[in-house]
Formats: sequence, structure tokens, C-alpha cells
Amino acid sequence: MEVITIEMLSLLKTRTEIAQEIGKIKNQQGMSVSNESREDELRELVKKTCQEINFDSNTALKFLNFLLNESIKVQSSTSNTHLAIFLKAKELEQQGKKIIHLEVGEPDFQPPLNVKKSLSEVYDKGFGKYGPAKGLPEFRTKLAEFANNNFDAGVNLENVMVTPGARFGVFLAITTLLDPSDEIIVIEPAWPAYRQCAINSGIKVRSIKTKLENKWEPDLDEISSCINENTKMIVLNYPNNPTGKILPKTLQDQIVNIAKENNLYILSDEIYSNYSNGEWSSILSYNYEKSIVTQSFSKSHSMTGYRIGYLVSSKDIIEKLTKLQALCLTNVSEPIQYTAMNSLGDDVTKNTEIMNERLTKLEEICKEMELEFVKPDGAMYIFARTKNPINTSDLSEELLNHGVAIAPGIGFGDYNEFFRISACLDIKTLIEGMDIIKTRL
Amino acid sequence: MEVITIEMLSLLKTRTEIAQEIGKIKNQQGMSVSNESREDELRELVKKTCQEINFDSNTALKFLNFLLNESIKVQSSTSNTHLAIFLKAKELEQQGKKIIHLEVGEPDFQPPLNVKKSLSEVYDKGFGKYGPAKGLPEFRTKLAEFANNNFDAGVNLENVMVTPGARFGVFLAITTLLDPSDEIIVIEPAWPAYRQCAINSGIKVRSIKTKLENKWEPDLDEISSCINENTKMIVLNYPNNPTGKILPKTLQDQIVNIAKENNLYILSDEIYSNYSNGEWSSILSYNYEKSIVTQSFSKSHSMTGYRIGYLVSSKDIIEKLTKLQALCLTNVSEPIQYTAMNSLGDDVTKNTEIMNERLTKLEEICKEMELEFVKPDGAMYIFARTKNPINTSDLSEELLNHGVAIAPGIGFGDYNEFFRISACLDIKTLIEGMDIIKTRL
Repeated sequence: MEVITIEMLSLLKTRTEIAQEIGKIKNQQGMSVSNESREDELRELVKKTCQEINFDSNTALKFLNFLLNESIKVQSSTSNTHLAIFLKAKELEQQGKKIIHLEVGEPDFQPPLNVKKSLSEVYDKGFGKYGPAKGLPEFRTKLAEFANNNFDAGVNLENVMVTPGARFGVFLAITTLLDPSDEIIVIEPAWPAYRQCAINSGIKVRSIKTKLENKWEPDLDEISSCINENTKMIVLNYPNNPTGKILPKTLQDQIVNIAKENNLYILSDEIYSNYSNGEWSSILSYNYEKSIVTQSFSKSHSMTGYRIGYLVSSKDIIEKLTKLQALCLTNVSEPIQYTAMNSLGDDVTKNTEIMNERLTKLEEICKEMELEFVKPDGAMYIFARTKNPINTSDLSEELLNHGVAIAPGIGFGDYNEFFRISACLDIKTLIEGMDIIKTRL
Repeated sequence: MEVITIEMLSLLKTRTEIAQEIGKIKNQQGMSVSNESREDELRELVKKTCQEINFDSNTALKFLNFLLNESIKVQSSTSNTHLAIFLKAKELEQQGKKIIHLEVGEPDFQPPLNVKKSLSEVYDKGFGKYGPAKGLPEFRTKLAEFANNNFDAGVNLENVMVTPGARFGVFLAITTLLDPSDEIIVIEPAWPAYRQCAINSGIKVRSIKTKLENKWEPDLDEISSCINENTKMIVLNYPNNPTGKILPKTLQDQIVNIAKENNLYILSDEIYSNYSNGEWSSILSYNYEKSIVTQSFSKSHSMTGYRIGYLVSSKDIIEKLTKLQALCLTNVSEPIQYTAMNSLGDDVTKNTEIMNERLTKLEEICKEMELEFVKPDGAMYIFARTKNPINTSDLSEELLNHGVAIAPGIGFGDYNEFFRISACLDIKTLIEGMDIIKTRL
């Protein structure tokens, strides 16, 4: 066995040296380091060779991935998001500067009054002990009922898992269900966490880049043609952050069919379902056993900082995700679970109405400013660009100094000319913020 | 590049086949799958070869690790812990069965009354928004002061990060600071999470097995001799779970020196510091820049289910860990941070006194039962074995049916003849539980 290991090692050296040379040449020519069609050829070759030498292609493709990841690391480094801007803005505020937060998806509403009541009584109720990693059974039962009533699902508590925010749900699903050899499809522009979670686990991201010109609708052929045997998951997020897009039902049906045909997991992040103006249907309504839906109290109940959300999926998938949650967290904070449980049924339609009014006002202002955007079907944002393309990363840094934070497009994919504006403040402040932006365009 | 990749592939096939054959032989002979001295020889050979062919040994050793992990996966599977017993016990309770929980480290005390007050006022105080991933600055400042006053540390808020329980702190430290090629030293018996977090990230665990006969003190030569260039971290946990051991100061000094000399991170889990009867000193008192101390409100303030703890380390390390926490969680639940912040200074010495009384009573009972154990210096447990060795995994399953949950020794390492009893219930119930155990020994 030594001889074989050492022989592989000497090949690894040669391979690493070639990768470094390629990296240098690419850098000089300003080319992107990861070269997908090149990688695909290599992947095909590996599969062919495995057939010829009668070797398990799964182990071989995992090995190829080890080699490719090594190459990418030797060749390059990283980038920027709206969370980075938010953290910079928070720092400036701590220094006493006033910042209008148009970068963050954080509603300014108060959580329902029930939240106050629950927090006041949770100590005496005794919810504060270690509990099941999946969450309080009574909470999970209520969440299942809620999903059945609101998302046309057919689930019970075994299909539900409480998480400390939808973000942790996304992290669990991507980290647990996919291996480093696997690939994930992300339709962009997209919330950066999907990509970051994948990269953090050595998973390959295939981006489907949608365009404003196509109303942010993904091309079905493009999705189909990027699927290979390593593709294990597609991420959907409608109503979409940052565009506010809701897919036409038939298009969504077709995407779900592609996923089914290719046995892909569908990770559907539906945290904006509460803020939808058009006709929206949950992925749960398809009753597809490989779907994972993330939900949250952050936006609907304005409980961002409480960190409480949940996952709905098949019992088997929930079992798998539970293991990592148990390893990381033991359980989700019980006082917070109790509080969210009691507020699940609270009427939060007022929040939706207010958000709509604000979006309508923002649309008006953006039109006056001659910004280009697609009227959002839901969510809490406008994703816009100027007629003459500008670098919005620079713009966002500049605007911070003038007291406004915006989310640069680059955080959502290859959209450096776009920026995202949140409708999470009262109309007066929104106008104030937009007025400052106007002076800098 | 194709030719080289394909050539490596065919070697990988040969290697995998050899590994499978070895696995079969080992299984027939009942040998352990991972063979450390064999691996060490291979490691030496790789390093030597790297020098000869002038190739970076870090990449090569990482590659070796990929091969070794593959071999271990081809050859074997997994085991059992006290968390598993706890979850089974919880399930039985949901079916209406009464269980005396001697398996879980969950104090039965109420959290300080201040917790109730804080929870009642947090809604109006407005702590419920997205915040810095490191935690509320005012909380971190107070935690730093607390560490300076209680742990002889010299830190400020930049050295502190709030986590949703010490468990998440352990997960962050191991996952972030170590790469899959790296090795971690765990002194056993040990809380299983250290090992599990390492394995979850493909990190190699080197166990130092301590013995009751040596009062659970690790052998310094054994520690030194298992350190190689891949060794990056040693985990300490004193007062210890499960043994209650506190190291003599000079022995602890020597271990810290070994860590310093070898540039190792020290991950020191000090969540039982509040329950120490002997002379205990925090790793923070050594002012070593590569130390990471985890702390928690779970045991000291009886806030297990609240999920709140913190890390103290160098500013650089905190920055690194913050990235993964931001990716996974955005921030730790703000209402819970606010609550813990206000209770940090609460007098919890009464908890320590009660725990001591119970441990003293448990020791008495264990002596009567002729169990073998070392009198604990702290923590909340007794780790004992019967004079004639028995399989405690079987015992713990059997006892569940008789209404008592205990933690089998196997969860803490290769200690199948030991079991852990928690002193987290009132003396009357402890006696009741021990009486049931007596009938089954």
C-alpha cells in the first residue's frame, strides 16, 4: 500500500504544479479560475475510465473533487455581501453616526404583543430545560397544522424541525444532505448564504443567471443542461430575495418536474411567503419527498433577532438534519420556541399591508429616478440598476459615508450594476434615504 | 493534466481494493479498523518522500488524510452516547413512563429570579433585532470583566464571543481552526462532543486514555509522543465531565507548556468551573494566545435549555470563529443574550453548595455499593465501575426499562465497564435511583 500511496503523491505534485501554472496564466489574462466546461470534460473522462477499469464512480468523482478544490485553492481567494455592509453600518452607528438602513431585510414592526406576554410567563411555565433536538413536540405539531392550512401541505410533526432561524436550516440542509463531491444549483440573483454554505462544505455551485430582461425567470434548458450525476440539489427562493419575483405557476411546475426527473433535492426557502402579492404556491404543495422548505418568524412576525424558524421535509430527511443540529446545538432555545409557538397564529396581515404600501412608494421613487427594475411580486425589496451601469460596490461604500446603507448587487451573484433597497422603514425615512442616493448617482 | 488525473485514479482503485481486503481480515480477527502506528509509518514515509521530490508536505499530508478517511469509511461504521440515552428516556416519558434522570447533566435548580424579570422586560427594551455575530457589545464587555475577576484573565470585549451554548463554541473552534488533515488530542474519558465535532470535520482524533488507577491523570510522555506536525489542538476539560477530576496545578502547567512548545491550540472547556471544590485555575490565567476557553450559563445558572454560553480567546481567533457563526446563525438570540447578561452577576453559590452535598451523599452510596471511583474534585458526576466488570451499555438499556437513565461509559471513550451518575436531582430521588441500580448489579 505504501508504494501506491507514494506513487499517487508524486502524480499529485505534478498535478499541483500544472494547476499553479494554469492559475498564473489565467490571472495574467484576467480569466475566472474555475473553468466549468473544462471540469465537465474531466468529469466525463473520469466516469468513462471508471467504467473501463470497473471502479466505483462515486469514490472517483469525490477524489476528482478533492483534486479540483485543491486546484481552486492554489489558484485564487474571495468576495463581498450585504451582511458585510450591515456590519460596517452597525460599527459606524456605534461610533455615533446615523445610518438609514436600506441594506437589511429587517422589518421595523414590533413583534406581536403575544410575544411580550409569552416572554413574561415562560419562566414560570418552566420551558428552559434540555429538549429534543427537533424542537418541542407541541410546537412542531402546531407548525405542521399551520403548514397544512397555509401552504397546502400534508404533513405532521415528524416532518417538522425547529431551527434557530431559517439560515441555520439552510446550513443544515446543504451541509448534511450534500457531500463535497456534489453540486448544487442556485438561481441568481440569490441570497448569498446558499452559495456560502455550499462553499463552506466544499460543494460545487452551478449558477443559473437570470436577467431583468427576462423578468428574472430562469431558463429551463439552462437548468437541465447543467445537471450531471453529481448534481444533488436545486435551491428555490420565491418570493425572491432580492428581486421580489414569484415564478409563474407553470414555470415552477416545470422546475419541480426537472428536479423530480433528476432525483434532486429541492431546498425551497420560503421565508417571504407572508409578503406575497401575486399568486404564490409553496413547494410543499407538490408533496415531493425530496423537498426541504425553510420558514422563519423573522420577517412575518418581525422577530429577526429572536432567531427562530423551522424546516418542513420528509421524516427521513428531518432525521438526518437532526443529527447535526444535536451535535451543534443540543436544542433550540426553549423560551424562544415557547414564545414563537404562542405567536404562530397571531394576525400579521397588517405587516403585509404596510410593506405593500412602502414597496408601491419605492417603485414610484425608483421610476422618477429612472432606475430599471421589475415590479416585485412580493418580499420586501426592489432590485434596481441605473440606466448607465455603475459599480454599486463602490456606491455602497460611498453611501455609508453619507448615512445610507444599501446592498450591493455583487453579494447576490454577478450583478455588480444592481443594488437592493429594503422597504423595511417608514415611508418618510425611505424617502430621506432615496434622496441621499439620488445625490450620488 | 487528464493523463495524470486518470493515472491517479487507477492507483486509487488499487488502493481502495487493498483497503477493503485489509478491512475484511481485520473484521474476521476482531481488530480495530484505524491502526495508528501503521498510519504514523505512512505519514513519515510521505514526509520523507516530499523532501526527496521537493513537494509541499502540507498538501501531501492532506491528501494522505483523504486516502486514510476513505479507507476507514470503506472498512467500518459508528457507536452510542449519553445523549442517545437521554433522547430515549425523553421518548419513554412522552409515552407516560416515569424516568429518574441520572444520565443528564442538567441541574434541577430554577434559574436566578433575575432571569424571570429580564424575560418580562426584554420586549419593551427592544432587544430582538439582528445584531453583531459576536454578541451584544455590552454583554461581551461584562463577560470580559467577569473573566478578569473570576478566571484571572486579562481580556476585553474583543476577546469574547457569545455562542448559543458552549457546545456551539466547541463546534466553532474545532470546525474553524482545524483542517481535515489536522489532528486533535482528546484526554479520555471525555464528553463525546469533542470527538464528534472532530470526526464531523474529518479531523483525526488522538485519544489519551487516562485510568482510574492513576486518578484520571494523563501521562505527559504519552501526550508528547502522540504529537506530530499535523497535531493542531489539545482539548482540556477540568473540572472534568465525567470524572469530576481537577488536575494538580503543576501537571496542568506542564500540559500547557507542551502545548506552547508545539504551537497547539488549547481548547479548554470550563463549563464546570462553578462547581469546583478543589483548587482550580482557568487556562485563561496562562495568558496563552492560542487558548480558547468555552463557558456556559447552562450549569452555573441552571439555564440549560436557554442555550447561552461564550468563548474567550485572542482577538484573531474570535474573528475567525465569528465568520462561521455569522454564516450559520447571523447572531445569538437577543432576548436570551439580554437575559443572561443581567444574570451574569447573580449569586449562584447556593447551587454549588447543594451540588456538593449531593455528591457527598452519592459517594457514600457508591461506597456502600462497593463501586470503584475517584472522589470528584468538582463538576456534578461520579464515574464509577463495579468490582467485577460489566457491560454498562447493556446495563443502561436495561435500567431504562426499570425507570432509571444512566450514562454508559462507552460514550466517553473506551470505558465500557464504567457509568456516569449525575447529581442533578434532590437527594431523595438520587437514593431512589441508586436503589433501583442496586437491584440490577
